[in-house]
Amino acid sequence: MKATILGATGYTGMMLLRILASHPEVKCLVASSRGAAGRPLAEADPGLSPAALASGRLSPVVLSPAEALEDPGDVLFSALPHGASAETCAPVLGRTVVIDLSADFRFRDAGRYRSAYGADPPQARFQEKAVYGLCERYRESIRHASLIANPGCYPTATLLPLLPLLPHLLPGAPIVVNALSGITGAGKKEVINLLYAERTENANAYNPGRRHRHAAEIAEQLGGETLLFTPHLVPLKQGMLVTTTVTVRDASTAVDALDSACSGEPFLVLTGETPPETRHVRGTNQVRIGREVVAKGGYGGEDILILMSAIDNLWKGAAGQAVQNMNIRFGFDETAGLLREADL
Amino acid sequence: MKATILGATGYTGMMLLRILASHPEVKCLVASSRGAAGRPLAEADPGLSPAALASGRLSPVVLSPAEALEDPGDVLFSALPHGASAETCAPVLGRTVVIDLSADFRFRDAGRYRSAYGADPPQARFQEKAVYGLCERYRESIRHASLIANPGCYPTATLLPLLPLLPHLLPGAPIVVNALSGITGAGKKEVINLLYAERTENANAYNPGRRHRHAAEIAEQLGGETLLFTPHLVPLKQGMLVTTTVTVRDASTAVDALDSACSGEPFLVLTGETPPETRHVRGTNQVRIGREVVAKGGYGGEDILILMSAIDNLWKGAAGQAVQNMNIRFGFDETAGLLREADL
Amino acid sequence: MKATILGATGYTGMMLLRILASHPEVKCLVASSRGAAGRPLAEADPGLSPAALASGRLSPVVLSPAEALEDPGDVLFSALPHGASAETCAPVLGRTVVIDLSADFRFRDAGRYRSAYGADPPQARFQEKAVYGLCERYRESIRHASLIANPGCYPTATLLPLLPLLPHLLPGAPIVVNALSGITGAGKKEVINLLYAERTENANAYNPGRRHRHAAEIAEQLGGETLLFTPHLVPLKQGMLVTTTVTVRDASTAVDALDSACSGEPFLVLTGETPPETRHVRGTNQVRIGREVVAKGGYGGEDILILMSAIDNLWKGAAGQAVQNMNIRFGFDETAGLLREADL
Amino acid sequence: MKATILGATGYTGMMLLRILASHPEVKCLVASSRGAAGRPLAEADPGLSPAALASGRLSPVVLSPAEALEDPGDVLFSALPHGASAETCAPVLGRTVVIDLSADFRFRDAGRYRSAYGADPPQARFQEKAVYGLCERYRESIRHASLIANPGCYPTATLLPLLPLLPHLLPGAPIVVNALSGITGAGKKEVINLLYAERTENANAYNPGRRHRHAAEIAEQLGGETLLFTPHLVPLKQGMLVTTTVTVRDASTAVDALDSACSGEPFLVLTGETPPETRHVRGTNQVRIGREVVAKGGYGGEDILILMSAIDNLWKGAAGQAVQNMNIRFGFDETAGLLREADL
Repeated sequence: MKATILGATGYTGMMLLRILASHPEVKCLVASSRGAAGRPLAEADPGLSPAALASGRLSPVVLSPAEALEDPGDVLFSALPHGASAETCAPVLGRTVVIDLSADFRFRDAGRYRSAYGADPPQARFQEKAVYGLCERYRESIRHASLIANPGCYPTATLLPLLPLLPHLLPGAPIVVNALSGITGAGKKEVINLLYAERTENANAYNPGRRHRHAAEIAEQLGGETLLFTPHLVPLKQGMLVTTTVTVRDASTAVDALDSACSGEPFLVLTGETPPETRHVRGTNQVRIGREVVAKGGYGGEDILILMSAIDNLWKGAAGQAVQNMNIRFGFDETAGLLREADL
Repeated sequence: MKATILGATGYTGMMLLRILASHPEVKCLVASSRGAAGRPLAEADPGLSPAALASGRLSPVVLSPAEALEDPGDVLFSALPHGASAETCAPVLGRTVVIDLSADFRFRDAGRYRSAYGADPPQARFQEKAVYGLCERYRESIRHASLIANPGCYPTATLLPLLPLLPHLLPGAPIVVNALSGITGAGKKEVINLLYAERTENANAYNPGRRHRHAAEIAEQLGGETLLFTPHLVPLKQGMLVTTTVTVRDASTAVDALDSACSGEPFLVLTGETPPETRHVRGTNQVRIGREVVAKGGYGGEDILILMSAIDNLWKGAAGQAVQNMNIRFGFDETAGLLREADL
Repeated sequence: MKATILGATGYTGMMLLRILASHPEVKCLVASSRGAAGRPLAEADPGLSPAALASGRLSPVVLSPAEALEDPGDVLFSALPHGASAETCAPVLGRTVVIDLSADFRFRDAGRYRSAYGADPPQARFQEKAVYGLCERYRESIRHASLIANPGCYPTATLLPLLPLLPHLLPGAPIVVNALSGITGAGKKEVINLLYAERTENANAYNPGRRHRHAAEIAEQLGGETLLFTPHLVPLKQGMLVTTTVTVRDASTAVDALDSACSGEPFLVLTGETPPETRHVRGTNQVRIGREVVAKGGYGGEDILILMSAIDNLWKGAAGQAVQNMNIRFGFDETAGLLREADL
Repeated sequence: MKATILGATGYTGMMLLRILASHPEVKCLVASSRGAAGRPLAEADPGLSPAALASGRLSPVVLSPAEALEDPGDVLFSALPHGASAETCAPVLGRTVVIDLSADFRFRDAGRYRSAYGADPPQARFQEKAVYGLCERYRESIRHASLIANPGCYPTATLLPLLPLLPHLLPGAPIVVNALSGITGAGKKEVINLLYAERTENANAYNPGRRHRHAAEIAEQLGGETLLFTPHLVPLKQGMLVTTTVTVRDASTAVDALDSACSGEPFLVLTGETPPETRHVRGTNQVRIGREVVAKGGYGGEDILILMSAIDNLWKGAAGQAVQNMNIRFGFDETAGLLREADL
């Protein structure tokens, strides 16, 4: 099959390129980028392995998005920014399977998109057709989707352990999510705040409470507004760690629901009472999930459950999940191209 | 005045040495250590400045604890581990002002100490006399104390913004504390889990819920058990960031109480809705405190307040606060030796 | 085939485990360790992927070295410390192909080993049989070797670009090698000097001139003593960067020799005048080599050539090269199990 | 006295601000910046301590360079880029003491400046008057200078141990300098190559041989061209480590010359055969210098001397040395405002 990447020189696009370059089903892979169009791929992305460059499967030159869209092949991955992504993909929507890594098609509730992104959801007539690509939850819909909205990194790490617990939560009780993100989560942008000298040996919260756009995305999936979501930047290149504190009616039932939801899932790894570490998912598509029960710690004597989940923000949080979505959509082995040992 | 440090070669002890070496009131400073006794100080701690070493104020050789206790001077700082600290200091308790940086005298509730530390509180007859050295809260008692229990790093960063809000919290509602710590918070220990290769580009929670000993210390100060405390290790040498989500009856009254508690305090810096960054307190005794109000986000429609506080775990979280306690106790300017610009 | 690893819980052993777990020719893989014997592998090395653990190819429990040696299979990798390595492998030397990652069999000149390691080379009767496993240089001998001495990390990164230039160097002129190493190069040891807090944001030379044991190993291969080798520790988990300044009779002939030696080599990547970056080899078996000519910069007006080479100290510098040696020895595709995209 | 800083929001300017804010002789300190003009200082540089901001010594608002030059006070520090620096300072040259941290006045040899910086040296009529502000070498000239060209970071770390050895070097033998720099050495610039995600866990040489502008500056001071200078970027925020390998006629005479040059110098710290560590100079104005002798290691049997020097690139490599120059020029204690304990 042939795959095309829009935005191939950002961090997410580069990771898509690396994963797809050795994917057993992808025989032709086209990289496109506005900024690097016309440059040899080996120069635009000097970290690619000589084996990948010599494989004959990658386009030797980076195309412009317009050139790439002339013949996008079987699947188009868009790693463009929101707004630009939907507009750029519009000409091929409905003709090629599109996996959009931006936020443009993640919301059914247009009001939420509007308040989070400051504009109407783009390409309105395709919004209904989009499937939210949280693989483990919406696998069946993904199999038949022509437009897959790949979830954000924070929502992925937060929702996978949390959604199975929804029926077990005390209604209305605050869901307190504290999340740590690696710096690549902010993209490859020329801004002072992302410089090494600003981020090494530094940590801070940002957009606390409900200010972060991903809070809206999580709330959309939760179907409610009891969410308090505080993300933090910490000195990690890749990695994400989410700690979620919820009130449950009965902890053991809730833990059973979590165990059951993870059972048989190739990428969901339960670590029990041992908190997961981000290094153990670095460079992989795994979600490692730990949990702690504090009996009768809640407001009315209910149990408290603390969920801890770790992903690599560029893998399961972006490019890895996008490829998993492709695998599901095209009927490949769901783990194809995605089995890899983590960093030590 | 003369000051003596027990445990001068651990990270806390080394920081005490650096702060006290240029303190305007300390004319004689003795370093002691079990492991380094008998070695020249310049060799045991090669990072000390030539100016400090040449000042004539520091003992040129590291003493054994026993030697140091023969004449501890006006104030004895103990940076020994809990248990060992109280036992080692016992001979001089009541004769010299002791500032103990271990947990040995932090608890009034012996049961709490016992369940957190697995032993009875040591030196029982001195427990009543100890003052909990959270400077901004217990300043008046500290002025007259002969035994000051210097607080833990997590409790310091958590309690300073939280205690003023206690009267404004919804009773019984969970207090959710998520905290990030620099690696020096774990001490200078020869353990695999603290190696560079284990900690760089890695993050994980540990002892979630109520398992960490500092959860007991915080709970003791809060006087209740609605605390959920999840600490995390992140790749920072020095630094601590605490994010606390609480339910308040009325956010604006609560914010007023916070502002009022910080007013006039030389080390408490309010950053308003801008979340504090750990680099801005690195190498200083400051506590930077930000906050976010989420109106009507609580269980019963109450307001939610998110507090974010940053300290340097070795300064305000340990050695800096210990010196601040000395300054208060001896009637020095409270900021003496503690005004210093942060890391960039 | 069946492979056995001695010392599977150190950094090198863990990396061997990860590479071999997905090697297409290894059907059975046994991990052994003195410290972890008897523990489930999933617990001794919690970072292994669930896919690897479920593959049925790995021994589910860590064996003791003695147990492992009862039936080591077709190839035995020893990641034990020098001295212990040769002694432990002795019983199977000559019966099983042994790839020794320690220094025990790297030297032909016993005097060099003795002055570097402070003891006679162990297992003297096997010393003659050992082949120095610098793959690109000794490939033909490796094909028939029963005992392969896997080179050290510094020697690998230094020698691969340098050996082809030997005939072109000005005889006697100093070869100045400055090298930077990631911290895993020092092993997984419980020592203060390797703690995160000691190594982050810190750099220093160590064992300068000729004091490092690897200086002896490099000198053995160079066949002379004009080497000045100064290694440095920098804040990298994995990675090694070597900068070598040599005087050559004619730069363009020397560059041709370098180009020619790298031609067709799957793991040697020439970057020309662009200095290589360690991230581009992180997690791969590549050696990236750049060079700079300074015309007539030498003592007598000769040209100067500056070689810059980057490897991952745990891959090409240890476990990766060991597997490459196995591939050569057993007639597999030399890149089997070793093609992998680098870190971004 | 009154001091003014041009370029106060770059890393060097911010460090000048921090050092001067607590300098005992500076009673009025004005910050100026093109980009931040008109903004409150507390907002433009949020890391300044509350004590400094409340001291009444700092201008509360950032001025434009033009405003600042109306009344620059007793001393003007320029942390502007080369070219812009000389042009902006021109109106006050000769009227106010100017300490220029750019390269504009560092060269006597205009040809060298031209080939390194691609333009004629600016403000030609002042070039003769400028004194190269390498404090320990040119102290007497600095006392009377009205224009001080503050040295570059690499030249400072390289030259201080090397210049005393010049008479002892084997003439013509290559001087091989390998240097590691922290990322702040590249300034506070919005470029991809300086992002956290590009620099963490990464190392590379750049501008090897003689391509770096500082090679020209070092060569100017050495008075010859046998220099081979290869700088490297490593993951350090602040810090610089230089390893210099030279051929000397007699090592013990050379070491004596080094010892003698450092004797009595408050900021030069000899560490003997123990290589210096960058953390021990972090946040200080120290130069720590170690050395290793390799007897008879040279081309003709001469001795080799390896010098290792560590500085903080923002202190002794920029702002700290600039303040030291001010102290010398105005007859203050040379260490005023510059004695500070290093990072642990």
